[in-house]
Amino acid sequence: MVQHGTAERGLESPVIACIQMQPQVGAKRDNVARALRYIETAASEGASLVVLPELANSGYVFKDRDEAFSLAEALPDGETAQIFAATAQRLGIHLVAGIAERAGRRLYNSAILTGPSGHIGTYRKLHLWNNEHLFFEPGDRGVPVFDTPVGRIAIVICYDGWFPETFRLAAMQGADIVCVPTNWVPMAGQPADRPAMATTLTMAAAHSNGLVIACANRIGNERGQPFVGQSLIVGGSGWPVAGPASADREEVLYAAIDLQRIRAERTLNDFNHVLRDRRADVYDPMLGTGWPSAHS
Amino acid sequence: MVQHGTAERGLESPVIACIQMQPQVGAKRDNVARALRYIETAASEGASLVVLPELANSGYVFKDRDEAFSLAEALPDGETAQIFAATAQRLGIHLVAGIAERAGRRLYNSAILTGPSGHIGTYRKLHLWNNEHLFFEPGDRGVPVFDTPVGRIAIVICYDGWFPETFRLAAMQGADIVCVPTNWVPMAGQPADRPAMATTLTMAAAHSNGLVIACANRIGNERGQPFVGQSLIVGGSGWPVAGPASADREEVLYAAIDLQRIRAERTLNDFNHVLRDRRADVYDPMLGTGWPSAHS
Repeated sequence: MVQHGTAERGLESPVIACIQMQPQVGAKRDNVARALRYIETAASEGASLVVLPELANSGYVFKDRDEAFSLAEALPDGETAQIFAATAQRLGIHLVAGIAERAGRRLYNSAILTGPSGHIGTYRKLHLWNNEHLFFEPGDRGVPVFDTPVGRIAIVICYDGWFPETFRLAAMQGADIVCVPTNWVPMAGQPADRPAMATTLTMAAAHSNGLVIACANRIGNERGQPFVGQSLIVGGSGWPVAGPASADREEVLYAAIDLQRIRAERTLNDFNHVLRDRRADVYDPMLGTGWPSAHS
Repeated sequence: MVQHGTAERGLESPVIACIQMQPQVGAKRDNVARALRYIETAASEGASLVVLPELANSGYVFKDRDEAFSLAEALPDGETAQIFAATAQRLGIHLVAGIAERAGRRLYNSAILTGPSGHIGTYRKLHLWNNEHLFFEPGDRGVPVFDTPVGRIAIVICYDGWFPETFRLAAMQGADIVCVPTNWVPMAGQPADRPAMATTLTMAAAHSNGLVIACANRIGNERGQPFVGQSLIVGGSGWPVAGPASADREEVLYAAIDLQRIRAERTLNDFNHVLRDRRADVYDPMLGTGWPSAHS
């Protein structure tokens, strides 16, 4: 169904698969088994980089911190991470998966990147949404960019994507692809007949940074909290190359990415480049000042 | 046709009008006369804040620097700026207009804000597009926010809007409304059946910052360069409240803005606020490093 990209000097342009699925809160074993079936399918269809939703193994709407704690695990040594690492190695793919992380007494809303040679890195969500503040600590590792044979990869989780700085930090460190495990929920003001605002935010971030952005959302309703699906993969020019997916069905999106083209197309004409045109001289002194407290 | 917003403690929620028109390069007198007719119409319809396109008085596609120089004028004392200032005073409105600025030997792609009490301020485009680099200097005044009776107003011109930092700088200084005089042109990769990418960038910036963004584009084709119209006004939740306008007709968009609501809706829930959730601790050390030259 999908084609492998051209391999260039050891850099393989990947086929990305985003898995839109419905985890069940607390049913960790079932969630992982379900994810594994979709990963197998994606790999058999030629995917070399697979993205799972946020908190794919645990579910999202925890009753309390104790429940979140009991579902979390150490990274990269926890049981889910070990299973995903072994699967990525066996299938020869790269895999990004959202996992509730336990680090001593602290919890993080995290995601791992694991590949054919084992664990590569962990990202901890920087911008916590709503009740996540009751369970998780805010991320403390910045926006790392991992250099892999299928491109330079960053990870951004759900509400992180509301902050253009997150994608900018990835792009400024040379990222090609941002993988977004997410649990997007309905936003106030969303017209029923239009794609989720997350679609717009993702397209804008891809266009402004010349990034591929691959978003895997969950579906379903957990303890009264609905999720909006609409997973999508956006190319470096900002237009979707796969999706948005449905709002309510499990499905897998695929897109073949040309890394050379992504990098070349950041040059817009003889004078302009989406990243090099930044006016760092203007932004930096002011961004450093924080929120002006005099204003409402 | 349109209603004035509620006046609160001396703060009047404005009715914004964006004027989509077709200047002719070099025909300065005609362009200004044409703009004045639209301004009169907008004011008679109840508009209290009117936005004109980029380089509304001069046109855009200059043959050479000499032509640009001959069409530029000092600000705020040049002839166009004086006429616009007098008109805003007479009609009791605020007006944002793109004007080619001459400052000694230097040229800037600028815009003025003028109001019922006269000239308020000037913005100089920070991010120059394509051949503008042959005529203009890059802006050197940051992103000023002007405190007016119809809200705190910033100005952003065309390609500035490709840089999320521009809107962020306005929002962090307390802006309510960003006025965007623009001359949007077709972008590579734009599907013919979808709104211009500028629509997406504007919606994302409004949503991520809780800003009203009012874009007045031009139409027509100048010396082979087409423009895409599609002016629009986006509310603080990121959804259009007027437009996008047509791609090829002169027209005026109107939207009544509720400043109190715009400010209040930046609070998303008990835990989240679109601006206060910024992780300045994470962004600033890295944004300061500039483009990493080791990467392609």
